Amino acid sequence: MSDTIFSKIIAGEIPCHKVYEDDQVLAFLDIHPISEGHTLIIPKEAAATIDALSDEASAAIGKALPRIARAVMQVSGCEHYNILQNNGVPAHQAVFHVHFHIIPKHADGSGLGIGWKSRDFDHGKGAEMARAMAAAIGG
Amino acid sequence: MSDTIFSKIIAGEIPCHKVYEDDQVLAFLDIHPISEGHTLIIPKEAAATIDALSDEASAAIGKALPRIARAVMQVSGCEHYNILQNNGVPAHQAVFHVHFHIIPKHADGSGLGIGWKSRDFDHGKGAEMARAMAAAIGG
Repeated sequence: MSDTIFSKIIAGEIPCHKVYEDDQVLAFLDIHPISEGHTLIIPKEAAATIDALSDEASAAIGKALPRIARAVMQVSGCEHYNILQNNGVPAHQAVFHVHFHIIPKHADGSGLGIGWKSRDFDHGKGAEMARAMAAAIGG
Repeated sequence: MSDTIFSKIIAGEIPCHKVYEDDQVLAFLDIHPISEGHTLIIPKEAAATIDALSDEASAAIGKALPRIARAVMQVSGCEHYNILQNNGVPAHQAVFHVHFHIIPKHADGSGLGIGWKSRDFDHGKGAEMARAMAAAIGG
């Protein structure tokens, strides 16, 4: 995988406002925030999308999320927030190294805008899809 | 914490189209999908928001995400997708048991709508916030 701005931050070639680091995870402030306190959590393992990330690196991020979320809440003063992880350009991904956003939703309305349009659900087709997904995971 | 529809699904009192289950995690199709293949991943541990979830339960979800994402891609046919986890009503949370959405972004445009408006970033204030977050995590 080619270098990204995040692999350069991990390597210390580009500075960051570091929030958290362990042997597998790095967290720092997003310098193009959509709300105050907007924080990024990345694996040190290089993978463009989470489907290509190792279980171990993904687990390490999962483990760090609660404590980083609490710190973002405490310091930014937000009570509410979104965690977002985008995979692919059409899904709004801009840097091709896995990253989770923690985005405070402040009382002034700043934060993530969410477009949500529910669709019909066919239980017969749903049952079939769920079985196929379970088989894909189990296989 | 009071019962939610998700704790009833975990208890088997309400059926679901199950995709994945281990001792700490359950994944199933969202029956109010915003795109085909929209899947939910929840911890069996009851917590309303991720800041209240144990590190262990959050790590277990993290560990399961790559394989569930691959299954969603394979079965729904999507190449791109968003992972979203909402905390608090103003942040679009509707069920008060932690849940991660995997939302395919299909070629027809169905999927998550994202409102993204970058703000100015003050490096002096940012450095101060990052130090305060690091202290909150380390303390």
